[in-house]
Amino acid sequence: MSEFIEEDLSPAEIARQEQLYGPFTQSVRALMDAVIRTEVDEETVRAAQAAIEELTATLTRQQLPASYGIRFSPGGTSIRPWGNVVMGLRNPAAPPLTITHDEHGAAVADFVLGAVYEGPPGLAHGGVSAMLLDHLFGHACRAEGRHGMTGTLTVRYRRGTALGIPLRARAWVTGHEGVKTFVAGEITDADGVTVEATGTMILPRWARDGTPDA
Amino acid sequence: MSEFIEEDLSPAEIARQEQLYGPFTQSVRALMDAVIRTEVDEETVRAAQAAIEELTATLTRQQLPASYGIRFSPGGTSIRPWGNVVMGLRNPAAPPLTITHDEHGAAVADFVLGAVYEGPPGLAHGGVSAMLLDHLFGHACRAEGRHGMTGTLTVRYRRGTALGIPLRARAWVTGHEGVKTFVAGEITDADGVTVEATGTMILPRWARDGTPDA
Repeated sequence: MSEFIEEDLSPAEIARQEQLYGPFTQSVRALMDAVIRTEVDEETVRAAQAAIEELTATLTRQQLPASYGIRFSPGGTSIRPWGNVVMGLRNPAAPPLTITHDEHGAAVADFVLGAVYEGPPGLAHGGVSAMLLDHLFGHACRAEGRHGMTGTLTVRYRRGTALGIPLRARAWVTGHEGVKTFVAGEITDADGVTVEATGTMILPRWARDGTPDA
Repeated sequence: MSEFIEEDLSPAEIARQEQLYGPFTQSVRALMDAVIRTEVDEETVRAAQAAIEELTATLTRQQLPASYGIRFSPGGTSIRPWGNVVMGLRNPAAPPLTITHDEHGAAVADFVLGAVYEGPPGLAHGGVSAMLLDHLFGHACRAEGRHGMTGTLTVRYRRGTALGIPLRARAWVTGHEGVKTFVAGEITDADGVTVEATGTMILPRWARDGTPDA
Protein backbone atom coordinates (compact mmCIF):
# COMPACT_ATOMS: atom_id res chain seq x y z
CA MET A 1 0.00 0.00 0.00
CA SER A 2 1.04 3.59 -0.59
CA GLU A 3 1.64 5.75 2.40
CA PHE A 4 3.40 8.76 3.85
CA ILE A 5 7.00 8.19 2.83
CA GLU A 6 9.98 10.05 4.23
CA GLU A 7 12.51 10.78 1.46
CA ASP A 8 15.61 12.70 2.41
CA LEU A 9 16.13 14.67 -0.81
CA SER A 10 18.34 17.74 -1.16
CA PRO A 11 16.66 20.96 -2.32
CA ALA A 12 18.61 20.59 -5.58
CA GLU A 13 17.24 17.09 -6.13
CA ILE A 14 13.68 18.24 -5.44
CA ALA A 15 14.15 21.08 -7.93
CA ARG A 16 15.55 18.63 -10.50
CA GLN A 17 12.52 16.37 -10.14
CA GLU A 18 10.11 19.32 -10.39
CA GLN A 19 11.81 20.51 -13.57
CA LEU A 20 11.74 17.01 -15.04
CA TYR A 21 8.27 15.76 -14.07
CA GLY A 22 6.40 19.09 -14.24
CA PRO A 23 6.77 19.63 -18.00
CA PHE A 24 6.53 15.87 -18.66
CA THR A 25 3.15 15.66 -16.93
CA GLN A 26 2.01 18.85 -18.61
CA SER A 27 2.71 17.28 -22.00
CA VAL A 28 0.31 14.46 -21.11
CA ARG A 29 -2.39 16.98 -20.06
CA ALA A 30 -2.18 18.50 -23.55
CA LEU A 31 -2.36 15.01 -25.06
CA MET A 32 -5.51 14.21 -23.04
CA ASP A 33 -7.24 17.32 -24.38
CA ALA A 34 -6.21 16.32 -27.90
CA VAL A 35 -7.55 12.77 -27.45
CA ILE A 36 -11.02 14.15 -26.69
CA ARG A 37 -11.04 16.72 -29.47
CA THR A 38 -9.08 15.21 -32.34
CA GLU A 39 -10.70 14.74 -35.73
CA VAL A 40 -7.71 13.31 -37.58
CA ASP A 41 -8.23 10.20 -39.69
CA GLU A 42 -8.50 6.67 -38.35
CA GLU A 43 -5.05 5.63 -39.49
CA THR A 44 -3.42 8.50 -37.61
CA VAL A 45 -5.37 7.66 -34.45
CA ARG A 46 -4.27 4.03 -34.65
CA ALA A 47 -0.65 5.02 -35.17
CA ALA A 48 -0.87 7.36 -32.15
CA GLN A 49 -2.30 4.53 -30.04
CA ALA A 50 0.58 2.22 -31.02
CA ALA A 51 3.12 4.93 -30.16
CA ILE A 52 1.46 5.57 -26.77
CA GLU A 53 1.44 1.86 -25.93
CA GLU A 54 5.13 1.71 -26.72
CA LEU A 55 5.85 4.71 -24.47
CA THR A 56 3.87 3.16 -21.64
CA ALA A 57 5.81 -0.10 -22.00
CA THR A 58 9.05 1.88 -21.67
CA LEU A 59 7.90 3.95 -18.69
CA THR A 60 6.58 0.94 -16.77
CA ARG A 61 9.85 -0.98 -17.06
CA GLN A 62 10.82 0.50 -13.72
CA GLN A 63 8.05 1.89 -11.56
CA LEU A 64 6.60 2.38 -8.09
CA PRO A 65 4.70 -0.70 -6.85
CA ALA A 66 1.47 1.26 -6.33
CA SER A 67 0.25 4.87 -6.19
CA TYR A 68 2.63 7.76 -5.48
CA GLY A 69 1.53 8.38 -1.91
CA ILE A 70 2.75 11.51 -0.17
CA ARG A 71 6.49 11.98 0.20
CA PHE A 72 8.06 14.37 2.64
CA SER A 73 11.51 15.51 3.70
CA PRO A 74 12.73 15.07 7.29
CA GLY A 75 11.07 17.61 9.55
CA GLY A 76 8.35 18.23 6.95
CA THR A 77 10.52 20.84 5.18
CA SER A 78 9.04 19.69 1.86
CA ILE A 79 5.77 17.81 1.32
CA ARG A 80 5.21 16.26 -2.08
CA PRO A 81 1.66 15.07 -2.85
CA TRP A 82 2.75 14.64 -6.46
CA GLY A 83 0.26 11.90 -7.28
CA ASN A 84 -2.72 13.90 -5.99
CA VAL A 85 -5.64 14.09 -8.43
CA VAL A 86 -6.22 17.78 -7.68
CA MET A 87 -2.75 19.26 -7.32
CA GLY A 88 -0.28 16.50 -8.18
CA LEU A 89 2.80 17.66 -10.11
CA ARG A 90 3.01 14.14 -11.57
CA ASN A 91 -0.71 13.51 -12.03
CA PRO A 92 -1.92 14.30 -15.59
CA ALA A 93 -5.56 14.23 -14.40
CA ALA A 94 -4.90 17.14 -12.01
CA PRO A 95 -5.72 20.61 -13.45
CA PRO A 96 -3.35 21.06 -11.38
CA LEU A 97 -4.47 23.51 -8.72
CA THR A 98 -1.85 25.90 -7.35
CA ILE A 99 -3.06 26.98 -3.92
CA THR A 100 -2.11 30.19 -2.16
CA HIS A 101 -3.51 31.87 0.94
CA ASP A 102 -4.97 35.35 1.15
CA GLU A 103 -4.46 37.79 4.04
CA HIS A 104 -7.30 36.16 6.02
CA GLY A 105 -5.85 32.65 5.67
CA ALA A 106 -8.38 31.53 3.06
CA ALA A 107 -7.10 28.99 0.54
CA VAL A 108 -7.34 30.40 -2.98
CA ALA A 109 -6.76 28.91 -6.42
CA ASP A 110 -7.13 30.49 -9.85
CA PHE A 111 -7.54 28.11 -12.77
CA VAL A 112 -9.19 27.35 -16.09
CA LEU A 113 -10.87 23.99 -16.71
CA GLY A 114 -10.50 22.45 -20.17
CA ALA A 115 -12.42 19.84 -22.17
CA VAL A 116 -11.20 17.08 -19.84
CA TYR A 117 -13.48 18.30 -17.00
CA GLU A 118 -16.74 18.35 -18.94
CA GLY A 119 -20.10 17.28 -17.53
CA PRO A 120 -23.03 19.08 -19.17
CA PRO A 121 -22.02 20.39 -22.62
CA GLY A 122 -19.52 23.24 -22.27
CA LEU A 123 -19.68 23.12 -18.47
CA ALA A 124 -17.52 21.62 -15.76
CA HIS A 125 -18.96 18.45 -14.22
CA GLY A 126 -20.61 19.33 -10.92
CA GLY A 127 -18.49 16.64 -9.29
CA VAL A 128 -15.31 18.41 -10.39
CA SER A 129 -16.41 21.56 -8.57
CA ALA A 130 -17.15 19.42 -5.50
CA MET A 131 -13.71 17.83 -5.72
CA LEU A 132 -11.86 21.13 -5.98
CA LEU A 133 -13.73 22.66 -3.04
CA ASP A 134 -13.23 19.52 -0.94
CA HIS A 135 -9.53 19.79 -1.62
CA LEU A 136 -9.34 23.48 -0.67
CA PHE A 137 -11.12 22.72 2.61
CA GLY A 138 -8.10 20.72 3.74
CA HIS A 139 -5.80 23.61 2.91
CA ALA A 140 -7.97 26.15 4.70
CA CYS A 141 -7.71 23.96 7.81
CA ARG A 142 -3.95 23.60 7.58
CA ALA A 143 -3.56 27.37 7.18
CA GLU A 144 -4.70 27.48 10.82
CA GLY A 145 -2.22 24.77 11.77
CA ARG A 146 -4.93 22.11 12.11
CA HIS A 147 -5.15 18.90 10.12
CA GLY A 148 -8.54 17.86 8.87
CA MET A 149 -10.01 15.04 6.82
CA THR A 150 -13.39 15.80 5.27
CA GLY A 151 -16.21 14.37 7.37
CA THR A 152 -19.12 16.00 5.56
CA LEU A 153 -19.25 18.02 2.36
CA THR A 154 -22.35 19.89 1.16
CA VAL A 155 -22.32 21.54 -2.26
CA ARG A 156 -24.97 23.89 -3.68
CA TYR A 157 -25.00 24.46 -7.42
CA ARG A 158 -26.16 28.00 -8.25
CA ARG A 159 -25.51 27.90 -11.99
CA GLY A 160 -23.20 26.30 -14.52
CA THR A 161 -19.42 26.60 -14.19
CA ALA A 162 -18.10 27.15 -17.70
CA LEU A 163 -15.09 25.46 -19.24
CA GLY A 164 -12.38 27.63 -20.80
CA ILE A 165 -12.77 30.76 -18.68
CA PRO A 166 -10.88 32.06 -15.62
CA LEU A 167 -12.31 30.66 -12.38
CA ARG A 168 -11.41 31.18 -8.75
CA ALA A 169 -12.04 28.79 -5.87
CA ARG A 170 -11.82 29.93 -2.25
CA ALA A 171 -12.23 28.13 1.07
CA TRP A 172 -12.03 29.39 4.63
CA VAL A 173 -12.58 28.29 8.22
CA THR A 174 -15.83 29.39 9.83
CA GLY A 175 -15.48 27.80 13.29
CA HIS A 176 -14.26 24.99 15.55
CA GLU A 177 -15.87 22.49 17.92
CA GLY A 178 -13.64 19.87 19.52
CA VAL A 179 -12.05 17.74 16.77
CA LYS A 180 -14.23 19.45 14.14
CA THR A 181 -13.34 22.44 12.00
CA PHE A 182 -16.15 24.03 10.01
CA VAL A 183 -15.32 25.37 6.57
CA ALA A 184 -17.03 27.13 3.69
CA GLY A 185 -16.04 27.80 0.11
CA GLU A 186 -17.14 28.91 -3.33
CA ILE A 187 -16.22 28.92 -6.98
CA THR A 188 -16.65 32.20 -8.83
CA ASP A 189 -16.35 33.39 -12.40
CA ALA A 190 -16.36 37.00 -13.64
CA ASP A 191 -20.13 37.19 -12.95
CA GLY A 192 -20.04 35.88 -9.38
CA VAL A 193 -20.63 32.64 -7.53
CA THR A 194 -21.41 29.45 -9.46
CA VAL A 195 -21.01 26.86 -6.68
CA GLU A 196 -21.05 27.15 -2.87
CA ALA A 197 -20.01 24.56 -0.32
CA THR A 198 -19.73 23.95 3.39
CA GLY A 199 -17.90 21.18 5.16
CA THR A 200 -16.94 19.63 8.46
CA MET A 201 -13.33 18.60 8.75
CA ILE A 202 -12.34 16.02 11.36
CA LEU A 203 -8.95 16.01 13.09
CA PRO A 204 -7.41 12.61 12.22
CA ARG A 205 -6.73 10.24 15.11
CA TRP A 206 -2.97 10.41 14.56
CA ALA A 207 -3.03 14.18 14.98
CA ARG A 208 -5.00 14.00 18.26
CA ASP A 209 -2.19 12.42 20.25
CA GLY A 210 0.57 14.07 18.24
CA THR A 211 1.93 10.86 16.67
CA PRO A 212 2.18 11.02 12.90
CA ASP A 213 1.08 7.80 11.21
CA ALA A 214 3.98 7.99 8.75
CA MET B 1 -19.41 26.89 -26.98
CA SER B 2 -20.02 23.17 -26.79
CA GLU B 3 -23.58 22.01 -26.66
CA PHE B 4 -26.04 19.23 -27.37
CA ILE B 5 -25.28 18.32 -30.98
CA GLU B 6 -27.49 16.19 -33.20
CA GLU B 7 -25.34 13.89 -35.35
CA ASP B 8 -27.14 11.53 -37.69
CA LEU B 9 -24.74 8.58 -37.53
CA SER B 10 -25.56 5.03 -38.65
CA PRO B 11 -25.26 2.27 -36.03
CA ALA B 12 -22.27 0.97 -38.00
CA GLU B 13 -20.54 4.36 -37.83
CA ILE B 14 -21.19 4.63 -34.08
CA ALA B 15 -19.72 1.12 -33.63
CA ARG B 16 -16.71 2.09 -35.75
CA GLN B 17 -16.04 5.16 -33.58
CA GLU B 18 -16.45 3.15 -30.37
CA GLN B 19 -13.98 0.57 -31.60
CA LEU B 20 -11.53 3.25 -32.65
CA TYR B 21 -11.71 5.72 -29.77
CA GLY B 22 -12.36 3.27 -26.94
CA PRO B 23 -9.00 1.47 -27.11
CA PHE B 24 -7.19 4.69 -28.07
CA THR B 25 -8.43 6.47 -24.95
CA GLN B 26 -7.70 3.41 -22.84
CA SER B 27 -4.07 3.52 -23.99
CA VAL B 28 -3.82 7.07 -22.63
CA ARG B 29 -5.30 5.96 -19.28
CA ALA B 30 -2.48 3.42 -18.99
CA LEU B 31 0.03 6.12 -19.93
CA MET B 32 -1.31 8.44 -17.20
CA ASP B 33 -0.81 5.76 -14.58
CA ALA B 34 2.73 5.19 -15.87
CA VAL B 35 3.52 8.93 -15.73
CA ILE B 36 2.74 8.99 -12.01
CA ARG B 37 4.60 5.79 -11.16
CA THR B 38 7.56 5.63 -13.51
CA GLU B 39 11.09 5.44 -12.12
CA VAL B 40 12.97 5.24 -15.42
CA ASP B 41 15.97 7.51 -15.92
CA GLU B 42 15.78 11.19 -16.80
CA GLU B 43 16.84 10.70 -20.42
CA THR B 44 14.02 8.23 -21.03
CA VAL B 45 11.47 10.60 -19.46
CA ARG B 46 12.66 13.46 -21.65
CA ALA B 47 12.47 11.30 -24.78
CA ALA B 48 8.93 10.24 -23.83
CA GLN B 49 7.93 13.88 -23.37
CA ALA B 50 9.25 14.77 -26.83
CA ALA B 51 7.36 11.85 -28.37
CA ILE B 52 4.14 12.87 -26.59
CA GLU B 53 4.46 16.47 -27.75
CA GLU B 54 4.86 15.24 -31.31
CA LEU B 55 1.77 13.04 -31.04
CA THR B 56 -0.25 15.95 -29.65
CA ALA B 57 0.87 18.17 -32.51
CA THR B 58 -0.36 15.52 -34.96
CA LEU B 59 -3.70 14.97 -33.20
CA THR B 60 -4.48 18.69 -32.92
CA ARG B 61 -3.95 19.33 -36.65
CA GLN B 62 -7.66 18.77 -37.09
CA GLN B 63 -9.85 19.03 -34.02
CA LEU B 64 -13.14 20.15 -32.49
CA PRO B 65 -13.17 23.89 -31.66
CA ALA B 66 -13.92 23.27 -27.96
CA SER B 67 -15.01 20.45 -25.65
CA TYR B 68 -16.81 17.38 -26.97
CA GLY B 69 -20.27 18.30 -25.73
CA ILE B 70 -23.00 15.66 -25.87
CA ARG B 71 -23.88 14.23 -29.26
CA PHE B 72 -27.09 12.39 -29.98
CA SER B 73 -28.77 10.65 -32.88
CA PRO B 74 -32.17 11.83 -34.19
CA GLY B 75 -34.92 10.78 -31.82
CA GLY B 76 -32.38 10.21 -29.03
CA THR B 77 -31.70 6.66 -30.25
CA SER B 78 -28.04 7.07 -29.21
CA ILE B 79 -26.64 9.58 -26.71
CA ARG B 80 -22.89 10.04 -26.69
CA PRO B 81 -21.43 11.98 -23.71
CA TRP B 82 -18.00 10.84 -24.88
CA GLY B 83 -16.13 13.80 -23.40
CA ASN B 84 -17.65 13.32 -19.94
CA VAL B 85 -15.09 13.25 -17.11
CA VAL B 86 -16.86 10.35 -15.36
CA MET B 87 -18.00 8.09 -18.19
CA GLY B 88 -16.63 9.54 -21.42
CA LEU B 89 -15.45 6.95 -23.97
CA ARG B 90 -13.03 9.58 -25.30
CA ASN B 91 -12.01 11.12 -21.96
CA PRO B 92 -8.77 9.65 -20.56
CA ALA B 93 -9.50 11.19 -17.14
CA ALA B 94 -12.71 9.15 -16.82
CA PRO B 95 -12.28 5.81 -14.96
CA PRO B 96 -14.65 5.36 -17.04
CA LEU B 97 -17.79 4.37 -15.18
CA THR B 98 -20.09 1.88 -16.90
CA ILE B 99 -23.53 2.36 -15.40
CA THR B 100 -26.27 -0.23 -15.26
CA HIS B 101 -29.57 -0.34 -13.40
CA ASP B 102 -30.67 -2.94 -10.90
CA GLU B 103 -34.18 -4.38 -10.61
CA HIS B 104 -35.28 -1.43 -8.43
CA GLY B 105 -34.05 1.19 -10.94
CA ALA B 106 -30.98 2.12 -8.88
CA ALA B 107 -27.96 3.21 -10.93
CA VAL B 108 -25.02 0.89 -10.24
CA ALA B 109 -21.37 0.95 -11.28
CA ASP B 110 -18.55 -1.46 -10.44
CA PHE B 111 -15.03 -0.13 -10.80
CA VAL B 112 -11.47 -0.02 -9.49
CA LEU B 113 -9.70 3.31 -8.99
CA GLY B 114 -6.01 3.48 -9.83
CA ALA B 115 -3.13 5.75 -8.85
CA VAL B 116 -4.62 8.61 -10.89
CA TYR B 117 -7.44 9.11 -8.34
CA GLU B 118 -5.28 9.43 -5.23
CA GLY B 119 -5.96 11.86 -2.38
CA PRO B 120 -4.62 10.60 0.97
CA PRO B 121 -1.87 8.02 0.41
CA GLY B 122 -3.34 4.82 -1.06
CA LEU B 123 -6.88 6.20 -0.91
CA ALA B 124 -9.21 7.76 -3.44
CA HIS B 125 -9.55 11.52 -3.09
CA GLY B 126 -12.78 12.32 -1.24
CA GLY B 127 -13.71 14.60 -4.11
CA VAL B 128 -13.53 11.69 -6.56
CA SER B 129 -16.12 9.78 -4.50
CA ALA B 130 -18.29 12.92 -4.48
CA MET B 131 -17.95 13.23 -8.25
CA LEU B 132 -18.89 9.61 -8.95
CA LEU B 133 -21.94 9.76 -6.67
CA ASP B 134 -23.03 13.09 -8.16
CA HIS B 135 -22.87 11.50 -11.58
CA LEU B 136 -24.89 8.44 -10.56
CA PHE B 137 -27.59 10.71 -9.13
CA GLY B 138 -28.38 11.97 -12.62
CA HIS B 139 -28.69 8.41 -13.87
CA ALA B 140 -30.93 7.35 -11.00
CA CYS B 141 -33.24 10.25 -11.94
CA ARG B 142 -33.30 9.34 -15.61
CA ALA B 143 -34.11 5.70 -14.80
CA GLU B 144 -37.48 7.11 -13.66
CA GLY B 145 -37.83 9.10 -16.88
CA ARG B 146 -37.04 12.41 -15.16
CA HIS B 147 -34.17 14.72 -15.98
CA GLY B 148 -32.30 16.30 -13.12
CA MET B 149 -29.36 18.63 -12.64
CA THR B 150 -27.77 18.47 -9.20
CA GLY B 151 -29.04 21.29 -6.98
CA THR B 152 -27.51 20.12 -3.71
CA LEU B 153 -25.08 17.33 -2.93
CA THR B 154 -24.19 16.20 0.61
CA VAL B 155 -21.45 13.63 1.10
CA ARG B 156 -20.55 11.86 4.37
CA TYR B 157 -17.19 10.15 4.58
CA ARG B 158 -17.36 7.06 6.82
CA ARG B 159 -13.84 5.75 6.18
CA GLY B 160 -11.21 5.69 3.45
CA THR B 161 -12.00 4.37 -0.03
CA ALA B 162 -8.98 2.35 -1.11
CA LEU B 163 -7.31 2.45 -4.51
CA GLY B 164 -6.79 -0.82 -6.38
CA ILE B 165 -9.70 -2.83 -5.01
CA PRO B 166 -13.19 -3.57 -6.38
CA LEU B 167 -15.68 -0.85 -5.47
CA ARG B 168 -19.36 -0.42 -6.16
CA ALA B 169 -21.30 2.83 -6.32
CA ARG B 170 -25.09 2.90 -6.16
CA ALA B 171 -27.65 5.71 -6.34
CA TRP B 172 -31.44 5.65 -6.13
CA VAL B 173 -34.43 7.97 -5.96
CA THR B 174 -35.96 8.49 -2.51
CA GLY B 175 -38.78 10.92 -3.36
CA HIS B 176 -40.20 13.79 -5.41
CA GLU B 177 -41.53 17.28 -4.71
CA GLY B 178 -42.48 19.46 -7.68
CA VAL B 179 -39.39 20.01 -9.83
CA LYS B 180 -37.20 18.30 -7.22
CA THR B 181 -36.15 14.66 -7.11
CA PHE B 182 -34.48 13.44 -3.92
CA VAL B 183 -31.70 10.89 -4.29
CA ALA B 184 -29.32 8.91 -2.11
CA GLY B 185 -26.25 6.86 -2.83
CA GLU B 186 -23.22 5.09 -1.44
CA ILE B 187 -19.86 3.64 -2.30
CA THR B 188 -19.06 0.23 -0.86
CA ASP B 189 -16.07 -2.07 -0.76
CA ALA B 190 -15.99 -5.70 0.41
CA ASP B 191 -16.30 -4.51 4.03
CA GLY B 192 -19.30 -2.23 3.53
CA VAL B 193 -20.01 1.46 3.06
CA THR B 194 -17.13 3.93 2.76
CA VAL B 195 -19.03 7.02 1.57
CA GLU B 196 -22.71 8.01 1.71
CA ALA B 197 -24.45 10.84 -0.10
CA THR B 198 -27.81 12.48 -0.57
CA GLY B 199 -28.83 14.98 -3.20
CA THR B 200 -31.58 17.14 -4.59
CA MET B 201 -31.92 17.06 -8.34
CA ILE B 202 -33.71 19.90 -10.12
CA LEU B 203 -35.69 19.44 -13.33
CA PRO B 204 -33.99 21.72 -15.87
CA ARG B 205 -36.07 24.55 -17.31
CA TRP B 206 -36.00 23.07 -20.81
CA ALA B 207 -37.54 19.83 -19.50
CA ARG B 208 -40.37 21.65 -17.71
CA ASP B 209 -42.11 22.80 -20.89
CA GLY B 210 -40.98 19.82 -22.94
CA THR B 211 -38.65 21.77 -25.25
CA PRO B 212 -35.14 20.33 -25.47
CA ASP B 213 -32.46 23.02 -25.49
CA ALA B 214 -30.54 21.18 -28.22
